[in-house]
Amino acid sequence: MNVPRKPIKAALFGATGYSGFELMQLIDKHPAMEITHATSRQAAGMTLNEVYPTLSRRRLCGPETVPLDQIDLAFLCLPHGGEPGCSMEEAARLRAAGVAVVDLSGDYRLQDLGEYLRWYGCEHRYPELAAAAVYGLSEWRREAVAEAKMVANPGCYPTCTALSLWPLCQEQLLSSAPLVINAMSGVSGAGRSGKIANLFVEVNESAKAYNPGQKHRHLPEIRQTLRAMAGGSLPGEVVFTPHLIPVNRGILTTTYAGLKQGVTLQQARTLYRAWYADAPFVQVLDEGDQACLRHVVGTNQVVISLHQADEHGVVVCAAMDNLIKGAAGQALQNANLMFGFEETEGLL
Amino acid sequence: MNVPRKPIKAALFGATGYSGFELMQLIDKHPAMEITHATSRQAAGMTLNEVYPTLSRRRLCGPETVPLDQIDLAFLCLPHGGEPGCSMEEAARLRAAGVAVVDLSGDYRLQDLGEYLRWYGCEHRYPELAAAAVYGLSEWRREAVAEAKMVANPGCYPTCTALSLWPLCQEQLLSSAPLVINAMSGVSGAGRSGKIANLFVEVNESAKAYNPGQKHRHLPEIRQTLRAMAGGSLPGEVVFTPHLIPVNRGILTTTYAGLKQGVTLQQARTLYRAWYADAPFVQVLDEGDQACLRHVVGTNQVVISLHQADEHGVVVCAAMDNLIKGAAGQALQNANLMFGFEETEGLL
Amino acid sequence: MNVPRKPIKAALFGATGYSGFELMQLIDKHPAMEITHATSRQAAGMTLNEVYPTLSRRRLCGPETVPLDQIDLAFLCLPHGGEPGCSMEEAARLRAAGVAVVDLSGDYRLQDLGEYLRWYGCEHRYPELAAAAVYGLSEWRREAVAEAKMVANPGCYPTCTALSLWPLCQEQLLSSAPLVINAMSGVSGAGRSGKIANLFVEVNESAKAYNPGQKHRHLPEIRQTLRAMAGGSLPGEVVFTPHLIPVNRGILTTTYAGLKQGVTLQQARTLYRAWYADAPFVQVLDEGDQACLRHVVGTNQVVISLHQADEHGVVVCAAMDNLIKGAAGQALQNANLMFGFEETEGLL
Amino acid sequence: MNVPRKPIKAALFGATGYSGFELMQLIDKHPAMEITHATSRQAAGMTLNEVYPTLSRRRLCGPETVPLDQIDLAFLCLPHGGEPGCSMEEAARLRAAGVAVVDLSGDYRLQDLGEYLRWYGCEHRYPELAAAAVYGLSEWRREAVAEAKMVANPGCYPTCTALSLWPLCQEQLLSSAPLVINAMSGVSGAGRSGKIANLFVEVNESAKAYNPGQKHRHLPEIRQTLRAMAGGSLPGEVVFTPHLIPVNRGILTTTYAGLKQGVTLQQARTLYRAWYADAPFVQVLDEGDQACLRHVVGTNQVVISLHQADEHGVVVCAAMDNLIKGAAGQALQNANLMFGFEETEGLL
Repeated sequence: MNVPRKPIKAALFGATGYSGFELMQLIDKHPAMEITHATSRQAAGMTLNEVYPTLSRRRLCGPETVPLDQIDLAFLCLPHGGEPGCSMEEAARLRAAGVAVVDLSGDYRLQDLGEYLRWYGCEHRYPELAAAAVYGLSEWRREAVAEAKMVANPGCYPTCTALSLWPLCQEQLLSSAPLVINAMSGVSGAGRSGKIANLFVEVNESAKAYNPGQKHRHLPEIRQTLRAMAGGSLPGEVVFTPHLIPVNRGILTTTYAGLKQGVTLQQARTLYRAWYADAPFVQVLDEGDQACLRHVVGTNQVVISLHQADEHGVVVCAAMDNLIKGAAGQALQNANLMFGFEETEGLL
Repeated sequence: MNVPRKPIKAALFGATGYSGFELMQLIDKHPAMEITHATSRQAAGMTLNEVYPTLSRRRLCGPETVPLDQIDLAFLCLPHGGEPGCSMEEAARLRAAGVAVVDLSGDYRLQDLGEYLRWYGCEHRYPELAAAAVYGLSEWRREAVAEAKMVANPGCYPTCTALSLWPLCQEQLLSSAPLVINAMSGVSGAGRSGKIANLFVEVNESAKAYNPGQKHRHLPEIRQTLRAMAGGSLPGEVVFTPHLIPVNRGILTTTYAGLKQGVTLQQARTLYRAWYADAPFVQVLDEGDQACLRHVVGTNQVVISLHQADEHGVVVCAAMDNLIKGAAGQALQNANLMFGFEETEGLL
Repeated sequence: MNVPRKPIKAALFGATGYSGFELMQLIDKHPAMEITHATSRQAAGMTLNEVYPTLSRRRLCGPETVPLDQIDLAFLCLPHGGEPGCSMEEAARLRAAGVAVVDLSGDYRLQDLGEYLRWYGCEHRYPELAAAAVYGLSEWRREAVAEAKMVANPGCYPTCTALSLWPLCQEQLLSSAPLVINAMSGVSGAGRSGKIANLFVEVNESAKAYNPGQKHRHLPEIRQTLRAMAGGSLPGEVVFTPHLIPVNRGILTTTYAGLKQGVTLQQARTLYRAWYADAPFVQVLDEGDQACLRHVVGTNQVVISLHQADEHGVVVCAAMDNLIKGAAGQALQNANLMFGFEETEGLL
Repeated sequence: MNVPRKPIKAALFGATGYSGFELMQLIDKHPAMEITHATSRQAAGMTLNEVYPTLSRRRLCGPETVPLDQIDLAFLCLPHGGEPGCSMEEAARLRAAGVAVVDLSGDYRLQDLGEYLRWYGCEHRYPELAAAAVYGLSEWRREAVAEAKMVANPGCYPTCTALSLWPLCQEQLLSSAPLVINAMSGVSGAGRSGKIANLFVEVNESAKAYNPGQKHRHLPEIRQTLRAMAGGSLPGEVVFTPHLIPVNRGILTTTYAGLKQGVTLQQARTLYRAWYADAPFVQVLDEGDQACLRHVVGTNQVVISLHQADEHGVVVCAAMDNLIKGAAGQALQNANLMFGFEETEGLL
């Protein structure tokens, strides 16, 4: 077909994982952005429809063959640091060539590089680029993202959690009770590699916590964001327990948040509504409704519901699609901001 | 087949729901107990294999046709109070005839009948029988159940939650932080009636909290049990949020429990192991393992894992089968105790 | 929002079932068509987002309140004939008012009204309209649909089956062996009503044939279409056995087709490729690939794969989304043809 | 626990795959048989509960450490021939030591060793043992199994298919029309190895044929058995297309079988009932019922339903659990026959 060329040329590094694949499908519908190069180390030379028959016959290329002077933007759906070809290295190489970057890995999210070493197990080799990276939680950092050339796309749990608690943090309404965050995620969050633990028979008809005991890499990212939202520190601890449930996609977080004396559920809900009045992808539900995966899967939406807990706190539920708002959709939302498009372009 | 008669004759009231059906299958394998009558109001006159082709050709009867002088024991898998034929009424009728009762409904669980009225929406008409009923959390009330003629079989969430917190309550190790209980349950917990909300398409690939905001009927039951375990009162609030996930069976609870100053995770785990050393159906997992639905579904087991939360508390996960340990299995466990059999008879 | 009005005004009758809901989402993305009225008998007066929180606040109306002189087109997602408000009646009323109709029910699909009576259990009251209706299998009847004012949108199984066999029928390549069609469908095909048989627990981890023994209403429709494609009659019998499997969406058909002496698998595949070269929604897979639900769910695509059976025949597999190509997507594809849009508008 | 020793000592070779695991659980409930040794090449030295926390603390050993003079029987849940440690080799070693063998692999099923070479890709090195092996389709070969020391346990699809067609074959009622066998299987049939194709996200919400085009290794086994049942040859071809569906367990076969002139559905059903009157694990359903996975999963049962196809044939549906009747359960059923126990011992 003789498709008119679109103005923004993007390269997609790591096209055959779940988020790369999702991002490609989203951008194919974007009126002003196109993927001119899609890379894969294992599948370089194959066409996409050899991997996934209903996709186009676009040919995958090796990452080193992308002509950096012909692209405006790179999306990195690569493993985090430690190995050649990781996001940390590719981001540095691309930025050095002047290409704008949206990195979907965890490599440029943590500002404290000691934390990075502790949680990711390798030294960060590009502290200046890490310092320059903007944390792309779009609703929170809309203006900074619009100016950025290097965006660290947030993790899925941190996105859902931070949006569900932002108004309470920013307005300093939290008490010193622990913030108890329970989350459940679909299996695509575990990536597309052949581990026995992620086989159908192992996951189906089951459920369990994983990385409980404060061991999930998204915990420092959650803490960093909530603290920043709250002006530097939180009054209580953060307890984070993610679970794996047998669905393909989606994240549901359920958080117990203690509130300062006198703050009511109704006040909190009103505050949330005001806060997100201009956010096209965040919806605060009415009393009596609950955040539900089925309503958001396949979209870039986050839905939030608030409920009475005890007399000192509330339960906040939030649901979104881990591959869209939690990865590829937010990456495109950020790219829209970076290149001056409507935030919602290609995402409704 | 010419099967030798078994000594204990039991009637099953309400045989065509999920727990009735499960109980029938369990008792069929019990060496010393048999179901001589199985009732169903809607399906009276039909044979079981007309409802479920691989079952026996046993004929279902109306509840009024059961000869009460020929049975030793009745299991009630009936709706709770309010309507004719409910558990509240049938239990009273059966006890008046001298038949031992294990009631799987919520009718005889709450000791405070004002609470019963508030949560179940009807007046309790048999306060004496309610006072006499023993709450059949087998591990906790083993001796009382052995003496009882009227057992209120616990709800599924209360069973899982209470067993996962019993050692901490009884040993007075909880701090005043809120006990934040998040639970997820399979869909069989919602019963076998034709509601749109429980259709395959509505539940599959989804998840949500239900009855959040402290509105689930199991909350007062959980509070009652935990308080009794703790000697009368709890130092903190109980926040309970159940979720529905797309599995047929199973309950997983994840609880944040604040601990008194100086109590370590290792001490807590050692205590749990000692506590449950003689409980054939409770297993405390090693460090590094997590309670997982797949390991308990189809069994009467509860598995418990403990994890570090913040420096002030732990996360306790527990998993079990909601239809077995959470209903039919515990009912049989209680019947075993009542009639002097091994607690595990028919359940391993 | 101040959205510019789109030229084609459509009414959607029956908006709260699975296909109505799907159609609404599709048309919302169509650049030149809009739903100005959405009806529901039960939910009239409610807003859509009261039914489904992430949807718009559009208000549902009763079918009798739609101003017929203000709409160009009506999509009917209604029950088939027999009751007031059924498709048969509404189609007649709408056509009398000059409104173009795409009917997603079975009411106007069968040309032999004796067959209609036998399979649907009621007399057809509008034989003239039935005779005028064009059977909207878009790829097969593209020109006739473009001229039509009354389109009978095909059933899901007939769509998948007929497209998977069209080249063999039309080219007279079938032998007299029975055409053995086995199909499996997701549960959304059973509609959104509260039947115990469609509860999560009944369907999950299960599978079965339904309406075996040549009793499914789609059988006469399949036969009618295949015969017409083959020029009037088929050389062999049609044996059709649909199955229900635990997925939300999708149909997979696997058909054994005996071929005339000397026709090879490679010839058949080449023929299929030529046949569908210009069909934007049909894809014939390469040797070694299999039609797979995962690749088509959420799209209007049909994928077809051909395989050697014995030396006298082939196995043809075809997969599509039952709610899109099997219902709402094909309805929009037909509307595109009727109103002179690109066939793919709003569907890629 | 001080459990009394059971008379029959069995070794289980390959304990950590899905069928090995299932077999262990079954034998643990058998009153007269016990697993004294369970082997695993990868997990030798570990205890079972390190692999699966709710299992016993029995220690896994290497296959070479099993004392062959102390066991009566070996179950082989090993890969088929070609590599060291495969079933072909171990069976020969065990038989040479006088140990009775039930082999769950495909190594001793095919009598034509040319077929074995063609389908399994390696030369058979023990033709005498292959000739001596009894094909353990228990219902069909009950007497021969009772005399055997070497039993080749049938494949899952062949078990389901052959039992569903045995009466028609043996009574010579089939016409020359092709026998069109469509089957669907749960994912446990694909084994427990970390392939991307069997990841949850790849299988869930999907379905597809696999090894279509007569390429599945169970085809020659099906043909061999049906021909033997029919007295040496079949009047028509066998077309076999297996599918993968998103359930953990179960096989459902749907077969079109042409019948000789004049044979009615009712006659066929009556014949099936008579044929299986004494088979404790086979149930022929009434008219109007359909074979359904949910009714057999977790049991050693096969349910069969017959339906009218065209006027020349019937559709036969059969359902069973692929890991029980299709593997571990039938293996135990065969061992019961070999050692003179009731066929049903440990299996009801």
